[in-house]
Amino acid sequence: MTAYDERLARVRDGMKAQGLATLILTPGAAMSYLTGFSEAGHERLIALIVPSTDARLFITPSLNAAQVRANPAGIGDVRVWDDAQGWESLLSEVIVDLTLDIGVVAVDDDMPARFALKIQQLMPTTPLRLASSAFAPLRAAKDTLELAALQHAADATDALIPVAFAACAAGATEMSVSLALQKALGEAGHESSFDSIVAAGQNGSSPHHHTGKTKMKTGDVVVLDFGARVEGYCGDITRVCALGKASDEARRVYDIVYRAHQAGVAAVDAGATAHDVDSAARRVIADAGYGEFFLHRTGHGIGLECHEAPNIVGGNRTPLQPGHCFSIEPGIYLPGKFGVRLENIVTVTESGSARVLNQAIPPELPIV
Amino acid sequence: MTAYDERLARVRDGMKAQGLATLILTPGAAMSYLTGFSEAGHERLIALIVPSTDARLFITPSLNAAQVRANPAGIGDVRVWDDAQGWESLLSEVIVDLTLDIGVVAVDDDMPARFALKIQQLMPTTPLRLASSAFAPLRAAKDTLELAALQHAADATDALIPVAFAACAAGATEMSVSLALQKALGEAGHESSFDSIVAAGQNGSSPHHHTGKTKMKTGDVVVLDFGARVEGYCGDITRVCALGKASDEARRVYDIVYRAHQAGVAAVDAGATAHDVDSAARRVIADAGYGEFFLHRTGHGIGLECHEAPNIVGGNRTPLQPGHCFSIEPGIYLPGKFGVRLENIVTVTESGSARVLNQAIPPELPIV
Repeated sequence: MTAYDERLARVRDGMKAQGLATLILTPGAAMSYLTGFSEAGHERLIALIVPSTDARLFITPSLNAAQVRANPAGIGDVRVWDDAQGWESLLSEVIVDLTLDIGVVAVDDDMPARFALKIQQLMPTTPLRLASSAFAPLRAAKDTLELAALQHAADATDALIPVAFAACAAGATEMSVSLALQKALGEAGHESSFDSIVAAGQNGSSPHHHTGKTKMKTGDVVVLDFGARVEGYCGDITRVCALGKASDEARRVYDIVYRAHQAGVAAVDAGATAHDVDSAARRVIADAGYGEFFLHRTGHGIGLECHEAPNIVGGNRTPLQPGHCFSIEPGIYLPGKFGVRLENIVTVTESGSARVLNQAIPPELPIV
Repeated sequence: MTAYDERLARVRDGMKAQGLATLILTPGAAMSYLTGFSEAGHERLIALIVPSTDARLFITPSLNAAQVRANPAGIGDVRVWDDAQGWESLLSEVIVDLTLDIGVVAVDDDMPARFALKIQQLMPTTPLRLASSAFAPLRAAKDTLELAALQHAADATDALIPVAFAACAAGATEMSVSLALQKALGEAGHESSFDSIVAAGQNGSSPHHHTGKTKMKTGDVVVLDFGARVEGYCGDITRVCALGKASDEARRVYDIVYRAHQAGVAAVDAGATAHDVDSAARRVIADAGYGEFFLHRTGHGIGLECHEAPNIVGGNRTPLQPGHCFSIEPGIYLPGKFGVRLENIVTVTESGSARVLNQAIPPELPIV
């Protein structure tokens, strides 16, 4: 039994538990999890159809047929449509063939409405649900192969830290740091998990700043958020440095965020929930008087997707479980001044505590 | 009246014609078209809500509130949710406030099912449609500002041709060519329209090959497909070269694709349809005996999205109209050997003929 067969068997258990008769998955993490294959189809439908009992099959435009036929899971039933014919008639045939309109159909959470609404039109009386209900618990608890891939992604990401720090210099642009990261990634044979965020000075006060042409200057606090994707799995860390010198305020804020980060890691323990981890980190920042400047949740699950379950957020009472992997990334964002966010990826061990996949975060604001 | 107000007025005409009471748009081209703003919200809902009569408003997570408030269209009604509360309760309030559940609601074609299905749950009896029906004719016929942006994107893309050719050399990897393009783009202050495709030798026989670690060798035919995004609008061209020398077959296939491309451009004329342009290009390749190796449509519309209406495909009887912008990109893909695809962007002039936005394609296979 291959890893893909095992995952399929577990997903089918999940389908049964959720009352789902069929999955229709468009390219993305769920397709990748079940087949090792995913390829952006853009406005053309590529779909994996998984009936709860019958064999799986792919639908693909002719453009991608060769790639789909080479899917690592070895799924041989590949049905091809061409641009002149369109996909609706082929899917209609499959619906009739396999009586997919009987029972609940679950579609990929990321499926664009252009497909989801048309699928609903082709099966007007069939209830549509989200496929994540059959995947979420499985995909959140990583198996051995997945943990190995996440460690590789973390290692490849850590290897970029000196590259990022070396590229930060007065007069250099944010974009030049991002390009240095891109180049190092390419030379190592990896892709980026996401567009790197390089945010200098007051740009750092926007958590999702777009890396741009801003030139860094002495004294700037620089937020560096990047990750390597290895074997399909995402790395994701955030480091902060100051150029040449740092203000007392910058050092103080860094220290608070560092302690919040450590408190979050320490809160990962047998019986703890996602909520507990969020609270532990948040409390340190609130106690220091910066609560209103911590604008987001403490972390997010990570795996085939950069953001997936479990969500490390207030109110999420999901108990943490062995194999869960997530970021811990508290931050303080001071409008018009600077931002500090510190992020590592952790996994929950069999004993319930955290194992940190990345290098230790420097306890004091690094000056570069 | 700003450009955004004018577009809104025209989109509202489109809504009326299509019987749509409300648009709910997630980040993407339609949001950008109406507001100048778009920002990936990933699993968090950022939405622009456009009732046919009431004022527009934004829904945003707190994380993106500052960015949303700075929207170029100056939309001041920005309603904020936070991670602990979630977005459903806020949207429910807005639905009640504005009685959005009365009448047909159109959602963004790219809206992920995770949002579209929940929106349907919040308004179970409200019919959901695709918003593109209100946008497509407008967005396909570019206005003056858009044509200017597309010309800038084409110019910035053309400027990369010598960079790509210079990076192609025996022993260099596909990835190194892609990185050279990325670097030149970054230095010019632009983003990529899409991940560049660099496909050497037999990799070129897959139209959407992933740029990888393959090393090029003398005699390889290399497909180079890339584009710069400028002012939000996409450039997209494909050029082909051979390293050091070229086989007779490569020269012959290049010549056929070149003639197919020219035939496609010439077919753009008053009264012509998208189908006619596809047929003209396809006929040249079929007549040369390579019909079965031309795997895709002849082209795609381009604008805020790299692929949008009009689709230049057999069966699309849409008459071409002034302001339409699209690619003409016939190709021949010989499995195990190589591929050739030649692509420029054209726009339809007031007289109905094509104006080519890019540099002329070399009539003979360039040797680099």
